[in-house]
Amino acid sequence: MSNGSSAERIATELRAELAGAPAGSRVPSTRSLTDRFGASPVTVQQAMRLLVRQGLVESRTGAGTFVRPSAPAPRADFGWQTAALGPVPSGGGEVGSTLQNPADDVIALHSGYPADDLLPVRAVRAALARASRSRSAIDRPPAAGVPELRTWFAHEVAEATTSAGGAPAASDVVVMPGGQSALSSVFRSLARPGDTVLMESPGYWGAIAAARQAGLVVVPVPRDGDGAVDPVVLAEAFERTRARLFYAMPHFANPTGSAWSPREASAILDVVRQNAAFLVEDDWAHDFALDVPVRPLVAEDPDGHVVYVRSLTKSLSPAVRIAAVIARGPAGSRIRTDRVIDGLYVSGVLQTAALEVVTAPGWAAHGRRMREQLRRRRDALVALVDAHLPGTLTAVPAGGLNLWLRLPDGSDAELFTARAASRGVLVSPGAEWFPAEPTGPFVRLNYSGPDPSRFGEAVRILADCL
Amino acid sequence: MSNGSSAERIATELRAELAGAPAGSRVPSTRSLTDRFGASPVTVQQAMRLLVRQGLVESRTGAGTFVRPSAPAPRADFGWQTAALGPVPSGGGEVGSTLQNPADDVIALHSGYPADDLLPVRAVRAALARASRSRSAIDRPPAAGVPELRTWFAHEVAEATTSAGGAPAASDVVVMPGGQSALSSVFRSLARPGDTVLMESPGYWGAIAAARQAGLVVVPVPRDGDGAVDPVVLAEAFERTRARLFYAMPHFANPTGSAWSPREASAILDVVRQNAAFLVEDDWAHDFALDVPVRPLVAEDPDGHVVYVRSLTKSLSPAVRIAAVIARGPAGSRIRTDRVIDGLYVSGVLQTAALEVVTAPGWAAHGRRMREQLRRRRDALVALVDAHLPGTLTAVPAGGLNLWLRLPDGSDAELFTARAASRGVLVSPGAEWFPAEPTGPFVRLNYSGPDPSRFGEAVRILADCL
Repeated sequence: MSNGSSAERIATELRAELAGAPAGSRVPSTRSLTDRFGASPVTVQQAMRLLVRQGLVESRTGAGTFVRPSAPAPRADFGWQTAALGPVPSGGGEVGSTLQNPADDVIALHSGYPADDLLPVRAVRAALARASRSRSAIDRPPAAGVPELRTWFAHEVAEATTSAGGAPAASDVVVMPGGQSALSSVFRSLARPGDTVLMESPGYWGAIAAARQAGLVVVPVPRDGDGAVDPVVLAEAFERTRARLFYAMPHFANPTGSAWSPREASAILDVVRQNAAFLVEDDWAHDFALDVPVRPLVAEDPDGHVVYVRSLTKSLSPAVRIAAVIARGPAGSRIRTDRVIDGLYVSGVLQTAALEVVTAPGWAAHGRRMREQLRRRRDALVALVDAHLPGTLTAVPAGGLNLWLRLPDGSDAELFTARAASRGVLVSPGAEWFPAEPTGPFVRLNYSGPDPSRFGEAVRILADCL
Repeated sequence: MSNGSSAERIATELRAELAGAPAGSRVPSTRSLTDRFGASPVTVQQAMRLLVRQGLVESRTGAGTFVRPSAPAPRADFGWQTAALGPVPSGGGEVGSTLQNPADDVIALHSGYPADDLLPVRAVRAALARASRSRSAIDRPPAAGVPELRTWFAHEVAEATTSAGGAPAASDVVVMPGGQSALSSVFRSLARPGDTVLMESPGYWGAIAAARQAGLVVVPVPRDGDGAVDPVVLAEAFERTRARLFYAMPHFANPTGSAWSPREASAILDVVRQNAAFLVEDDWAHDFALDVPVRPLVAEDPDGHVVYVRSLTKSLSPAVRIAAVIARGPAGSRIRTDRVIDGLYVSGVLQTAALEVVTAPGWAAHGRRMREQLRRRRDALVALVDAHLPGTLTAVPAGGLNLWLRLPDGSDAELFTARAASRGVLVSPGAEWFPAEPTGPFVRLNYSGPDPSRFGEAVRILADCL
């Protein structure tokens, strides 16, 4: 090895060591470094000159060599980017409060992700370990997904099909790296920038953000008292906006928990068909149906008006980011193309692990246990809210993971959320779920987080904060 | 269990069995089904009526019950979607030939993904297995990525930093689910629909498609004889188009294999800076530097003109879809926001496994062995091409995975590719790599596929096809 590269090696090692040292720390003397590295004084001095050139240390005559204040920040000038980037895209800066990673000691009623004890943790670990030994750890799966997993997603829907000819096929399925990616892909594929998408309001913040990222104009359609959309209001919105796209969560909407009855669903689908439009059916809570089962609307849709999104991330594990879109006809082909361009394919290891968990004999029993736990959590939180925050609960949800509270008129939901957070209770302020101004002071309480034994403590603190 | 649900259970089981049966097959008699399911004739007949309603079977009086021709396809009417979807987005239908999954017996010189024997298969399997036992199998990682992995990506670049103040920090890194997703996110974040992006031509088909998906106009900038872009030509393109974005692969471009010299890089970066623009530096072949090492340009870029993309998928495993974008200033913040909206976060299990492989003591040695194998493969294919397809090789690449051949004038590259495929040799037609018309009959040969012992056979077949 040449002298030069030896100096570089010493410099690299010293740089790593000095990276954490406070400015002004003394660098070891040349003599101690020659001993330590077994290098000549010339080589050590070359290493020092490298570090000086890199701005990491400075030598003060007669005093030695010292760590410099970290230099990069004050010198960088990003001003030119302001002109290059232009205005912030609408909705581009909003990212949900539900993604906060809370400190250990807080009570987390804000997250969208169920806690460990609701997940099939052992099955997920075993499936991932087995997948790591299989070809799926090395091979590239087909762009639209592992065939058996596509078949499973199609079959889950086909089971709910009653009339002739409506069941989707495996070829209608495309596997996605999570529900959020699925929504982004669907909005990009089914509309063009400037187009309108109708959305139930309140609705999922991630869907609002994904639609805006695709350049769409989000036009809210209010829920009526029962939580469904009035078909007449929807028809008017279609007529007024000439929209071709309606996004909804018919089964246990996030955040309200409300569900469309079969009669409402049928009337709404008729409006969608009459307007030659797509219904994006976000079946996010399929596995969290507590009091009534989910019958996906896509199961009875031979002509491809319903584009169906289902994710397994919340019911398997946050690490298993697997979802599917079911779409028939040219819409399906556009979504498959979009998916390839957006990310080529989804890791085969995650697809294989997901498939193993959902087709294992224990999956149904796990689901029953998990829903039983969720029912207990929901009922406990409902009782506490009724006792300590009377009149705020909008409805007892028949499924999903959330309670949707309307605080007394005149309350400030943001202030309330901040006050609760300062006392160690995290909830989500309602404004995030509205495509336009919120229609009242709402907050969302998620009952699937860690440690339900602290629900009582949490609700009493919330009552205090009002 | 009620009679009704029992009928449903029988129907579900029969449906699964009959799914693969040819139309006209006879369904077992009611009597044999009552025996088999231990159900009453009434229940079995209920099950049959369900199957008839679902269009799966039909009963012919006196003859029995038979499987119907599969019904859904002829009844679906997707015509309305044609109006709803409008014209196909530009470039939306093009998906690279490099994603074909070939049959077992062909010689695959078309793929973008190195074969097993070039991958750290054991390390990847072990890392995935270990990650499946860790908290990363259950937890949701931070949106921008696992901190230690962000630090690793930043450090990889910082090692190449020589002047003061240019090294990126871990906070400038965002982890992405693969290089393609990284490019999509960068194009969406740094420009708006209708804006122009300049691209080296020929260039990566996936980048062309991602830019068009983001609504950008792709303006090609030709490479000169040496394979780099002429700074004067680039400056003219910036002036003519008012573009703020230039996408390039300075190190071993895909497909040509050409690389910018340090002098060329410096002149090109000057042009980018003078135009207050971004250079998207796609360092896809960082781990495949065969004759000269890669020094990322982002290492010397304090003011955030370079947005750097590096993927680990090709060097670790197709299952480990992990990449990173390094971007400073507001550009970095836009990309992080886009990433959250597009897909919330990347699976922690894949991030943790990737981190373990690249920080393991064996990683450097694996890299040396892998590059030695790649050099041998490249040299063998170059010698064969020189012998059997003389005059076609455009240059011997100093890195990357591909040879770029220009067929004799008057050849048809598409026809040549089809002819070769029919004789069991897959190559990529050059047109996919041009944002505009191809400038000649080119094909790309990838030397990282399976079974290099068949290179001789493959090249002789290719010579035959000319």
